[in-house]
Amino acid sequence: MDKTKKKIYEIIFEADTPGGKFFDVALLFVIILSVALVLLESVPSIRDNHQHLLRILEWGITIIFSIEYLLRIAIIKKPLSYIFSFYGIIDLLSVLPTYIGLVIAGSHSLVVIRILRLLRVFRILKLTRYTQAGRTLVKAIWHSREKISVFIFFITMLVIIIGTIMYLVEGPEHGFTSIPGGIYWAIVTLTTVGYGDISPETPMGQFLASIVMIMGYAIIAVPTGIVTAEMINPTSEKNTQVCPQCLHSSHDDDAVFCKKCGSLLNPEA
Amino acid sequence: MDKTKKKIYEIIFEADTPGGKFFDVALLFVIILSVALVLLESVPSIRDNHQHLLRILEWGITIIFSIEYLLRIAIIKKPLSYIFSFYGIIDLLSVLPTYIGLVIAGSHSLVVIRILRLLRVFRILKLTRYTQAGRTLVKAIWHSREKISVFIFFITMLVIIIGTIMYLVEGPEHGFTSIPGGIYWAIVTLTTVGYGDISPETPMGQFLASIVMIMGYAIIAVPTGIVTAEMINPTSEKNTQVCPQCLHSSHDDDAVFCKKCGSLLNPEA
Amino acid sequence: MDKTKKKIYEIIFEADTPGGKFFDVALLFVIILSVALVLLESVPSIRDNHQHLLRILEWGITIIFSIEYLLRIAIIKKPLSYIFSFYGIIDLLSVLPTYIGLVIAGSHSLVVIRILRLLRVFRILKLTRYTQAGRTLVKAIWHSREKISVFIFFITMLVIIIGTIMYLVEGPEHGFTSIPGGIYWAIVTLTTVGYGDISPETPMGQFLASIVMIMGYAIIAVPTGIVTAEMINPTSEKNTQVCPQCLHSSHDDDAVFCKKCGSLLNPEA
Amino acid sequence: MDKTKKKIYEIIFEADTPGGKFFDVALLFVIILSVALVLLESVPSIRDNHQHLLRILEWGITIIFSIEYLLRIAIIKKPLSYIFSFYGIIDLLSVLPTYIGLVIAGSHSLVVIRILRLLRVFRILKLTRYTQAGRTLVKAIWHSREKISVFIFFITMLVIIIGTIMYLVEGPEHGFTSIPGGIYWAIVTLTTVGYGDISPETPMGQFLASIVMIMGYAIIAVPTGIVTAEMINPTSEKNTQVCPQCLHSSHDDDAVFCKKCGSLLNPEA
Repeated sequence: MDKTKKKIYEIIFEADTPGGKFFDVALLFVIILSVALVLLESVPSIRDNHQHLLRILEWGITIIFSIEYLLRIAIIKKPLSYIFSFYGIIDLLSVLPTYIGLVIAGSHSLVVIRILRLLRVFRILKLTRYTQAGRTLVKAIWHSREKISVFIFFITMLVIIIGTIMYLVEGPEHGFTSIPGGIYWAIVTLTTVGYGDISPETPMGQFLASIVMIMGYAIIAVPTGIVTAEMINPTSEKNTQVCPQCLHSSHDDDAVFCKKCGSLLNPEA
Repeated sequence: MDKTKKKIYEIIFEADTPGGKFFDVALLFVIILSVALVLLESVPSIRDNHQHLLRILEWGITIIFSIEYLLRIAIIKKPLSYIFSFYGIIDLLSVLPTYIGLVIAGSHSLVVIRILRLLRVFRILKLTRYTQAGRTLVKAIWHSREKISVFIFFITMLVIIIGTIMYLVEGPEHGFTSIPGGIYWAIVTLTTVGYGDISPETPMGQFLASIVMIMGYAIIAVPTGIVTAEMINPTSEKNTQVCPQCLHSSHDDDAVFCKKCGSLLNPEA
Repeated sequence: MDKTKKKIYEIIFEADTPGGKFFDVALLFVIILSVALVLLESVPSIRDNHQHLLRILEWGITIIFSIEYLLRIAIIKKPLSYIFSFYGIIDLLSVLPTYIGLVIAGSHSLVVIRILRLLRVFRILKLTRYTQAGRTLVKAIWHSREKISVFIFFITMLVIIIGTIMYLVEGPEHGFTSIPGGIYWAIVTLTTVGYGDISPETPMGQFLASIVMIMGYAIIAVPTGIVTAEMINPTSEKNTQVCPQCLHSSHDDDAVFCKKCGSLLNPEA
Repeated sequence: MDKTKKKIYEIIFEADTPGGKFFDVALLFVIILSVALVLLESVPSIRDNHQHLLRILEWGITIIFSIEYLLRIAIIKKPLSYIFSFYGIIDLLSVLPTYIGLVIAGSHSLVVIRILRLLRVFRILKLTRYTQAGRTLVKAIWHSREKISVFIFFITMLVIIIGTIMYLVEGPEHGFTSIPGGIYWAIVTLTTVGYGDISPETPMGQFLASIVMIMGYAIIAVPTGIVTAEMINPTSEKNTQVCPQCLHSSHDDDAVFCKKCGSLLNPEA
């Protein structure tokens, strides 16, 4: 009995054994299918013509996910800590809307919660070799968080001021009905998205817009510069290696001798 | 009496004491509220339906800012130098429009001046740890100012020439009513904003526009390259380490011996 | 006979002799002409007015390509391996549609297959000096493939979530008719393309869109950072210099002594 | 006489003396005014209402430029080599259209040639300190020309293929009237300009467009990477310093001793 339990544990929670790998790939396939189903169901023409097929598939997936959920609870040593963990809640939210839809009739908007199944993909991918590349990216962004915060704060100030000026210059008669509307336009323009739903019509407004666009063109260089600089010269997390002789710091992480005076960096080591 | 004055000074002008920190956070909250109020007041539906509430909040904030302004004048040693300083004028402009609106009826457009309250945020943030990150960014941009000036000058030349060509090729019948209009289109296109309010319709115009777009695509690399290069290899502000023997400069900041003739760089050190 | 064959081989397959170079340039010219012909033929006004000229040119090019194709088969030692190679199939597909159009009347849509002639350009360019620059670019992108995969995976997750939220917030009455439609909008916005065919109309939708745009503005820094970092510090393909004494790896390419223990890296050299 | 001539030469052609500097600034002002005049003249409302003022200003500027042109010819030693130089032709084209307009009535379209006056700005700026920054930028782009050519060639291939596919998928009924039209759309999309004048309407077209947009998002990293890499590690123009002892190359430009074996690099120097 205990052996079976351990085997199921290996299959469900780990990815080292052939069984575990097969389980992960199969689950990944079901998750993608279930997300595709939510997407297709939202298309009016598909929803109306294939209602029956969608329902069958939906129940099939819900039952698979339910069995998986119950198995996880049954196998793990501390079921409660799983149930209230991030992935535990996601797993529950993945199946709940379908069951609720059975009881309550008008719970249609709940159905979209099933899109959260998407997040289950991350659990499976956590175990793959792509994680290293992902971690490098996340670390580069994380180390730049202060610079990025300052940048976003600066952008926010800028679009409020630009939005207000454009509201005064163009006015409600040219589509700038309010300052928030002007700010929305400023963001659309500064980020070079440019929908064209609101666009300046007076010569003065077009002149100001031109300046904003060229600013946006130059400003985009800043986040790029931040992230690139961080990727090329990553901020060392423990750059605290100090020479005991000359107190010079800023050594490479793998340096053994001081690059300044040549004495051993960690004599006790 | 003098002790109370000193305490109030610490709270209002500094951020080291708990009282000073609380004052800063509270003021930040009021500023954000007051800016939000200006934004919301400009939305027609909100202005019409919640006129009474907006008025009460506006007067509450104006009174708080007025007390703060008078306190600053009363506490500081040189009131005049504060009154005519940048933040002194901003502080006054933050409250004045509301009082003027009381006296003169049709001074509605003045109301937008209150958006300048936004700038008061910078005084508070000056004291926080995010300033370091901000300074790094500003320094990188400042050191690139000559390259950025040349770039913007070049872009200006380019859009004037492109705008004129497109005015000749497309003409007023396809929305290019004047050369300035053509320049506006050139900026919208080159910066990849692309509103679509003016877009080429003749085959020749679309061909030229295609070239402009690919140029814009390549040109955007230039400001990015400038800022990134500056961030990775910051121009040293005191690269004045000169060899006392051969007078060779441009040594690394941590160099001890001259890389040209091998003599010690700082013999007295 | 054999000498003539060898000469033709040199002209057709190589680019070292004057004859070979001339053949390549002439062929390049014919390929560009033939592609231009396909493009022009698709323009309704040109197709209707110059039908006769287009037909003559098309047959001329088809005959030239046919002769070239037959010559290649006749000259090469292993005709079959050429016929079933990538360029062999492309060469056949370049001429086939014109002949089929002669036999079957309604095979008009086949005509577009002739655009594949474009790919023949790559065979000629394979022999030029631009290949080195191309290889550097491809190598930089290839070495970043894991990071780029993670990035595209992350973007896919993000646009599905954003698309679903916007579908719920804006709804079918503002153009977001389905979740796939919302995802399409999210991609249009996040990549800063911004057609404006679908754009948020509710204040809440515009607020969310603003956040998406600023995110897109920041996210664009990531692929740029990846590729730039790879171009500046290319991942060395043979970073396998290992110290024979302490087995420490990751030495610079031009290192002579181990930076860890100081012993010579290649004693036999 | 000769002394006066030399003085005028210094003022017109050089920028070292106070007189020369004043002349340059004054000329810059007149050039900007004259270009502004051409721009304003093209605006219908301004052209109709201020016809008289525009005419007077235009003739004033033309006379100033004519005097300057004649002075240059009179002062310089080899007038012919000036007349047929790049700037000589530009100078002539700057004044000719106004005189021709006097003789021939319907020569209105010639008027736009006056925009070439813009190019005269470069002659003046050639002498300023911004040139250094400009040269650095131009050099970075120039050294990347092979990589940029390959990139633009690749983009051209890509948009032809994408444009053809979209023409087949969407067809004339959704705005993709021809393959060149499809290519135009592909460029508008890939460069993230996104006018919205043509946008995919079928689900299949929108799906393909999504892929194109994400590709464009990733591709934009390539020119940025090229230029940034070139700016950070500029390709040395004479990286041919080879050690006469160990034949190791790739030394710094200012290196005196071989970094590999320590022997003098240029013994004869």
